[in-house]
Amino acid sequence: MVSFTCDYNEGAHPLILKRLAETNLVQEAGYGYDSFSESAREKIRAAVKTPSADVFFISGGTQTNATVIDALLKGYEGVIAVHSGHIAVHEAGAIEFSGHKVLELPAHDGKMDATELEDYLAAFYADPAWEHMVIPGMVYLSFPTEYGTIYTKKELSEIRGICLKYRLKLYIDGARLGYGLASEGCDLALEDFPKLCDAFYIGGTKVGALCGEAVVFPDKAPEHFFTTVKQHGALLAKGRLTGIQFDTLFTDNLYLEISRNAIERALEVKKLFTEKGIPLYIDSPTNQQFPVLTEKQMEKLDGKVLFEIWERLPGGSCVTRFATSWATSREDVEILKSVL
Amino acid sequence: MVSFTCDYNEGAHPLILKRLAETNLVQEAGYGYDSFSESAREKIRAAVKTPSADVFFISGGTQTNATVIDALLKGYEGVIAVHSGHIAVHEAGAIEFSGHKVLELPAHDGKMDATELEDYLAAFYADPAWEHMVIPGMVYLSFPTEYGTIYTKKELSEIRGICLKYRLKLYIDGARLGYGLASEGCDLALEDFPKLCDAFYIGGTKVGALCGEAVVFPDKAPEHFFTTVKQHGALLAKGRLTGIQFDTLFTDNLYLEISRNAIERALEVKKLFTEKGIPLYIDSPTNQQFPVLTEKQMEKLDGKVLFEIWERLPGGSCVTRFATSWATSREDVEILKSVL
Amino acid sequence: MVSFTCDYNEGAHPLILKRLAETNLVQEAGYGYDSFSESAREKIRAAVKTPSADVFFISGGTQTNATVIDALLKGYEGVIAVHSGHIAVHEAGAIEFSGHKVLELPAHDGKMDATELEDYLAAFYADPAWEHMVIPGMVYLSFPTEYGTIYTKKELSEIRGICLKYRLKLYIDGARLGYGLASEGCDLALEDFPKLCDAFYIGGTKVGALCGEAVVFPDKAPEHFFTTVKQHGALLAKGRLTGIQFDTLFTDNLYLEISRNAIERALEVKKLFTEKGIPLYIDSPTNQQFPVLTEKQMEKLDGKVLFEIWERLPGGSCVTRFATSWATSREDVEILKSVL
Amino acid sequence: MVSFTCDYNEGAHPLILKRLAETNLVQEAGYGYDSFSESAREKIRAAVKTPSADVFFISGGTQTNATVIDALLKGYEGVIAVHSGHIAVHEAGAIEFSGHKVLELPAHDGKMDATELEDYLAAFYADPAWEHMVIPGMVYLSFPTEYGTIYTKKELSEIRGICLKYRLKLYIDGARLGYGLASEGCDLALEDFPKLCDAFYIGGTKVGALCGEAVVFPDKAPEHFFTTVKQHGALLAKGRLTGIQFDTLFTDNLYLEISRNAIERALEVKKLFTEKGIPLYIDSPTNQQFPVLTEKQMEKLDGKVLFEIWERLPGGSCVTRFATSWATSREDVEILKSVL
Repeated sequence: MVSFTCDYNEGAHPLILKRLAETNLVQEAGYGYDSFSESAREKIRAAVKTPSADVFFISGGTQTNATVIDALLKGYEGVIAVHSGHIAVHEAGAIEFSGHKVLELPAHDGKMDATELEDYLAAFYADPAWEHMVIPGMVYLSFPTEYGTIYTKKELSEIRGICLKYRLKLYIDGARLGYGLASEGCDLALEDFPKLCDAFYIGGTKVGALCGEAVVFPDKAPEHFFTTVKQHGALLAKGRLTGIQFDTLFTDNLYLEISRNAIERALEVKKLFTEKGIPLYIDSPTNQQFPVLTEKQMEKLDGKVLFEIWERLPGGSCVTRFATSWATSREDVEILKSVL
Repeated sequence: MVSFTCDYNEGAHPLILKRLAETNLVQEAGYGYDSFSESAREKIRAAVKTPSADVFFISGGTQTNATVIDALLKGYEGVIAVHSGHIAVHEAGAIEFSGHKVLELPAHDGKMDATELEDYLAAFYADPAWEHMVIPGMVYLSFPTEYGTIYTKKELSEIRGICLKYRLKLYIDGARLGYGLASEGCDLALEDFPKLCDAFYIGGTKVGALCGEAVVFPDKAPEHFFTTVKQHGALLAKGRLTGIQFDTLFTDNLYLEISRNAIERALEVKKLFTEKGIPLYIDSPTNQQFPVLTEKQMEKLDGKVLFEIWERLPGGSCVTRFATSWATSREDVEILKSVL
Repeated sequence: MVSFTCDYNEGAHPLILKRLAETNLVQEAGYGYDSFSESAREKIRAAVKTPSADVFFISGGTQTNATVIDALLKGYEGVIAVHSGHIAVHEAGAIEFSGHKVLELPAHDGKMDATELEDYLAAFYADPAWEHMVIPGMVYLSFPTEYGTIYTKKELSEIRGICLKYRLKLYIDGARLGYGLASEGCDLALEDFPKLCDAFYIGGTKVGALCGEAVVFPDKAPEHFFTTVKQHGALLAKGRLTGIQFDTLFTDNLYLEISRNAIERALEVKKLFTEKGIPLYIDSPTNQQFPVLTEKQMEKLDGKVLFEIWERLPGGSCVTRFATSWATSREDVEILKSVL
Repeated sequence: MVSFTCDYNEGAHPLILKRLAETNLVQEAGYGYDSFSESAREKIRAAVKTPSADVFFISGGTQTNATVIDALLKGYEGVIAVHSGHIAVHEAGAIEFSGHKVLELPAHDGKMDATELEDYLAAFYADPAWEHMVIPGMVYLSFPTEYGTIYTKKELSEIRGICLKYRLKLYIDGARLGYGLASEGCDLALEDFPKLCDAFYIGGTKVGALCGEAVVFPDKAPEHFFTTVKQHGALLAKGRLTGIQFDTLFTDNLYLEISRNAIERALEVKKLFTEKGIPLYIDSPTNQQFPVLTEKQMEKLDGKVLFEIWERLPGGSCVTRFATSWATSREDVEILKSVL
């Protein structure tokens, strides 16, 4: 049996485990003050070509989103996201838990439309009752989105421009950032992100790490961000755990290399479906593919290939999700091919 | 140089790293639905002799405290802790962040006094203005305390009785639980805890794991606790990370065995100090020792042995903390001995 | 100049001011323990024909919504409201401030559709990821809605049935309850509300009082609700202020009588518009009327009659709102007539 | 029977009721945009001699404290108060509800000691673990304190200096501000407060109003404070209610004049006790007096004079509180005298 249910089915890239074992008994300070974390921060600053950037490691994605958004917003502000954005749906209300409303816009294949954003903001401030409403303080985007799609540089720049015009922060959730950067049509490089937003995170959990995300503040972190991280329960005592992992991922370009594997496998998977005439719900260039399978097709896979049901359609078909990752092998794809 | 600054200076017990490597490419479900987590839960249920207990894994201590306390309290309730309790001081207000006040009692060598607790509760309900005050809903204890001391079975039972009388939950923070259980004077076994409280956690981060704490609800977890964990940002996507670690720690009694090492080394360290006539701030039977060092004594250690300054005293002396752990070796103690 | 901008343009019904003056120097206990509040609670229990109901007075509507919703929900639960519901838009995120997400459904002339509600709930629990999402714990309805429309008894009963099926609380915001009850097509009486929901409030601010809303819990208030009110900053020291007002409003049926005045005037206003061939955006039977005015029509009113711009339409027309109240006189309507 | 239980036993000063009646049917805008509120703001700016001050009206004291403190603090900051401070005890955790910890210092007759404050702050930043702790962002003082005592100009200036040194805001709770200003030993005038703090409020509820407090920001209110007030549920729809009251209180010096009555009566009450040889728990110069009564003395008052039990002492005596107010008459004092 092979599983395509998600991009966190396996442990960590073997080089990470090797590094953990090699350094295991070296004594280091806690809370990110260890030399591994410092080295990882340096490598990330180099990779994003922003020497002055502040970098923090947090154990998971929801944690990271909740902490960064709370730190960047004022108490009375909310965050704008598309209807299918992770913070709007699948974080159990973690943003609201910190007191902030998620203000929803429509999603277009998972993406926010710049015009709709600007219309929303113009309408907001034109509304005579705006002072009685949650004031938008930030735009949240996922790159890639929850539907595997990506923004172009032009699209991101437009949204950034609107944010600047309306004094909004822009924050990008890069849970799968590597898979976006490694995808074919992507015209953005890692170094573009610091210029385009106020904060973003480089996802580790889904891209080769056991856990951990690297938050990058291009300018400088909100004051006392360390304390805010602790307040949110998001500070790892053994900061070395995330330090070593990101130090490894950002050595010899490992992060992008293993991301490329996911994309290559995803395109093979995509080809399998299209060759069979199976329609794709969305044309995703990244590691998540969304074939629409009939009941019969799903039965054939039953017990041999695992995948996720995304949405049930009238008539018994389903939008399904097949995710590849740094760990997906050609053999995994072969198995899928053999039973499709 | 050797460090006694804390009990999380090293990585993980080697058996844990071995298990992580062996299982690395096994595909498993996320969010604690993997087979390793299930196995770990079973072993913990067996170890605490409570087959019906609910067990959850959370990445760190502050996270665990904030999530469990919020889940067990009603919105208008606060939690009683001693002045030096971890939640009252060193969690950056994580409890208040979730809306609950920490109600403080005096600490006696880090411990809560049952009589003072009862007096507090009696006075609370005798106060005609009690409805205008935060209603106590829980008692929080650390075992061992932040000062390395432990409660006896009798002491815990008394506090438990008062909690039952006043309808308070009792929650025990076991960040260093193993070190308490392995200490000489301890008359409590792991299996006693489910009978004495509503929830407790078995600390992993400080006792051999890279990260992770195991929360045990003897009866049954608060409804939808999984969702509360997610809401707090405390849900690991790769639940296997904590699952594998606790499965290893609770195989062949490893958790208690490695705890014993910390205690043996701590007693050796303690002996070194007392033999030198160095006073101990508190008579701790566990892995944290608190010698009061003069400036001159600290200078001798400078550059050779690391430790923590706990409190500066008038005249230049300091209460210091020397912590041992599962990883402390006889050689480490020898180095300390050679320079003391 | 006469104003129809809202239903709180004036002070209080004269009988209230009279009562305040007469009782002014009577010494009474604070925080709702005064005899006026007790009398008002008794009269409200009688009016809703529920002798065992718990009744509380809170100074304003947003305050009331935030306090009651927080008290009735568990920490991980959210509240379902329509897109135009007051808590979803015009409370500056007061619900999110207490940690709860507002889960939005489409609004149909301001109303929630029972079928859409049931579909939403069925889909929620059918979603394999539901544990990662905010769990719906309550339905919030406004009666009348923000668009002046009202639910029939059948509609409310259907929604109630769905709530019971899915274990949701039902809470009704009656900021303008009197105006709904006094409207022509209304088949609900005050005494029906306790049977149809878990909590509702009888609005005073918009129906004759200087301030204050009366929350009714048909069964019994959530435990320690008094303390929750205080925690929310919603407890008036001089509870007599709301006590006296509601005692007056519920003496000799004053509340419904003055509500009827608003409806009579509203229907006259409505007739003025329809006779002029001015279209109504929504067919509202209550005290809020929503004529669609052209630029020219608005110019004619300029400087003589005040009203609220509700929504600007392409081409320069506007959806406007004209609100009547207990205080609107025939003369006010005459002035409008003379300039329309 | 006469009551000295608190300073909010009666309604409002008769001139307020008169004004409410006179203006009752004047149509005005809501939410503080009415002409009465504007006039009241102007008069308060004049009274505090700070033309640029921002003034807001909020319905009650806990509400005001919670809203102002939340608006002035950053998310990770706490507020320092003495152990007996209102926010530390009698607000049901309203400060913690908004996510902020109350950091407690000892109280000396209800007052904060400047040296203890400075020692606390010095120790805080000297603690190597300070980043793991709640960062102090504000000092909260009550003037007069909950024990009726007042700060001198020198004491306030010292505390202000320490706040500036450590970048803390200073906020003063003036629930009974008038009674402090009108007391004999007071060397502070209303106009001194804007120079000494970042925000303070002029209490109305306890000094002649039905409800309402006037918050003064000497410089300028925190950005979007209106929206924060709404978010906290603290925005009155009929802002005229507080506007008219404060406009009346700040016409012809009424606020201070009626405060003086409370002080004159309080000194008479004080004299009654001292002449009888009854000890005072605290030497209060303001409207709250704290005689220590024996059981026998309390029995004599039973059924004739009401007062508050403040603290039960061993042996049956009680610290009691007798509060006077703007409404206390010479006859009230005579009754007390006749039965003491």
